[in-house]
Amino acid sequence: MTMYSDRIGRVRELLREQGAAAAVFAPTDQMRYLTGWAESGHERFLALLVPAEADPVFVVPALNAPQARRNPAGIHDVVGWADETGWESAVRKLFRRWKVNRAGLVVDDELDSVHLLGLQSIAPRARCSAAGRLMQNLREIKSADELARLQRSAELTDCVYEEALCQVRQGMTEEELQDVVAQAYKARGTRPAFAIVCFGRNSAVPHHHSGPARLKRGDVVILDIGCTVEDYYSDITRTFAFGKANPKAAEVYDIVYRAHMAALEFGRPGVTGEQVDAAARGVIERAGYGKYFIHRTGHGIGLSGHEPPNIVKGNTQPLRPGMCFSDEPGIYLPGRFGVRIENVVTVTETGLRSLNAAPPAALPIVKA
Amino acid sequence: MTMYSDRIGRVRELLREQGAAAAVFAPTDQMRYLTGWAESGHERFLALLVPAEADPVFVVPALNAPQARRNPAGIHDVVGWADETGWESAVRKLFRRWKVNRAGLVVDDELDSVHLLGLQSIAPRARCSAAGRLMQNLREIKSADELARLQRSAELTDCVYEEALCQVRQGMTEEELQDVVAQAYKARGTRPAFAIVCFGRNSAVPHHHSGPARLKRGDVVILDIGCTVEDYYSDITRTFAFGKANPKAAEVYDIVYRAHMAALEFGRPGVTGEQVDAAARGVIERAGYGKYFIHRTGHGIGLSGHEPPNIVKGNTQPLRPGMCFSDEPGIYLPGRFGVRIENVVTVTETGLRSLNAAPPAALPIVKA
Repeated sequence: MTMYSDRIGRVRELLREQGAAAAVFAPTDQMRYLTGWAESGHERFLALLVPAEADPVFVVPALNAPQARRNPAGIHDVVGWADETGWESAVRKLFRRWKVNRAGLVVDDELDSVHLLGLQSIAPRARCSAAGRLMQNLREIKSADELARLQRSAELTDCVYEEALCQVRQGMTEEELQDVVAQAYKARGTRPAFAIVCFGRNSAVPHHHSGPARLKRGDVVILDIGCTVEDYYSDITRTFAFGKANPKAAEVYDIVYRAHMAALEFGRPGVTGEQVDAAARGVIERAGYGKYFIHRTGHGIGLSGHEPPNIVKGNTQPLRPGMCFSDEPGIYLPGRFGVRIENVVTVTETGLRSLNAAPPAALPIVKA
Repeated sequence: MTMYSDRIGRVRELLREQGAAAAVFAPTDQMRYLTGWAESGHERFLALLVPAEADPVFVVPALNAPQARRNPAGIHDVVGWADETGWESAVRKLFRRWKVNRAGLVVDDELDSVHLLGLQSIAPRARCSAAGRLMQNLREIKSADELARLQRSAELTDCVYEEALCQVRQGMTEEELQDVVAQAYKARGTRPAFAIVCFGRNSAVPHHHSGPARLKRGDVVILDIGCTVEDYYSDITRTFAFGKANPKAAEVYDIVYRAHMAALEFGRPGVTGEQVDAAARGVIERAGYGKYFIHRTGHGIGLSGHEPPNIVKGNTQPLRPGMCFSDEPGIYLPGRFGVRIENVVTVTETGLRSLNAAPPAALPIVKA
């Protein structure tokens, strides 16, 4: 299919530019982006090898070969290796043909280390580097089709959030609210990619595992949910108070909301990821809560839930139209509560546009 | 907790034996085995560092630090790194203290390559090797407690299979039968870790993705299901015919059954993994189907669904009491049908003992 061969052609161009002889992709979203197919080999080596000067080859366990041969990209060179012989000899032969040793070798960031060590022993003089930067060049600017999928995914998650909100009840557990979210996604033909539900002091732990905690009047609640629609992710976070709000939570919400809006208003083509981070972080720091904002302002999103560009100090790449990322500042007061507000935004010619509905401008209080 | 500190102590012993200065574990089952905790850092570096001559340290993203501090192993040294500064400086400091450069560095097989490349640039002269072999030494002999969990997991899966079998109906889809399996697991307080359902010609694809195919009279059906109970896996495969059996399928089933039994009867302490594989494979080869048995005879099982020891040509390690692995020969006739029979077995002082109920000795025909 043209889309896939265009993408692979672009990888080969970039390999040549950086003097690399080949790239090795594990069964990750990189492989899926390039071929429309990715199937875990579990502990077995399963990879797409893209040489700079020849056609790509799949090297897969023999039992995955029938599936690999049906790859939507139409790559017809599929080498199946048997458990008795191992994968190394097939790769050694290809590496010799492509002269990988002494050249550059680009490897998927998420390739298992045991396989990278294997590649390094096959081509000990190859200069290995991670594929992330190269693939970022391809993936961070979304096509119209990709943007449309992200938009549909965002809208679906907005609806699911509203539906879930109607079913919040005193005494329910975090896990029960997770089930409510899962049911709402299921009713719309998908399933949650994740659903973080935090009641009360658990909201102060950004990646809390939802559990048996029960909802009480006065709890601050964080819901961080998302799904995929046609393979593309959505990701929103909303914070509300249940029954009543303590003034401190309302104050912190206001700061986080202003930080969220500051990033949204500041971002535009040419501005860097770290400047957008600074715009949000500045609001929180000036309010005296800087040390409680313990993560980056955002992460890119697309075929992967987290991908470049990161909205973080150190990202000096300017934003370009077609990039998509989350805008999700937060303040976490250990042992008390946390607040996070997250939408996914895309870079337009003139600024940022949110794919999600606007978040409430003040801490919502859900009736008990 | 003593169990975890014993395990970490054993890792340190093995590091010293092989002249390695430290080991780096990713948030995998290795980390879980050593500390009772593992939480994905997603693309962020999250690792347990075990030096040969000092106490272990967690290096985790700042937002995971609260969870890491509650690790059941009681490891109190938790370094949280911030998105703005990155993880490398924390690891560099530790590596310098532990003199990792010029010594050996053991890395988790499943550590992301991008992080191994980072470690290699911090300690460019360290001799890197994969942790698999070292951890295999610890993990492949199961304790009485681990064996009891594997037994409970096996028995639960046996029950779920019998329940699912009662609900097989003409015209149902593979996905519907997957749902039946999921419901049966849920009713018993767990969920499927995997549930491969293959109808008709799909049974010829060992790792088929269950889909919309509908069950027809005469179909050969493969069910490959498992779950975890108290973190320990189960894994069985059963093959049956629906409504009626063609004689070819009955003949192939008989061969696979005899191969399964040959491995079960042949295995005992001192025999190697490849000899057990040969025992099963020999039956299939002598029947003329050698080239249709396209995978190893089995894989170890425990805290991971797949772990050492592998029952495959090339594994010359002798079996020892307390090892557990699957016995799962199969024959796959492309475009026609496949047969696989799988139980999990454990090595006793005198032979092998199946943790699962015995499989039917002839191709079962489920009434249409």
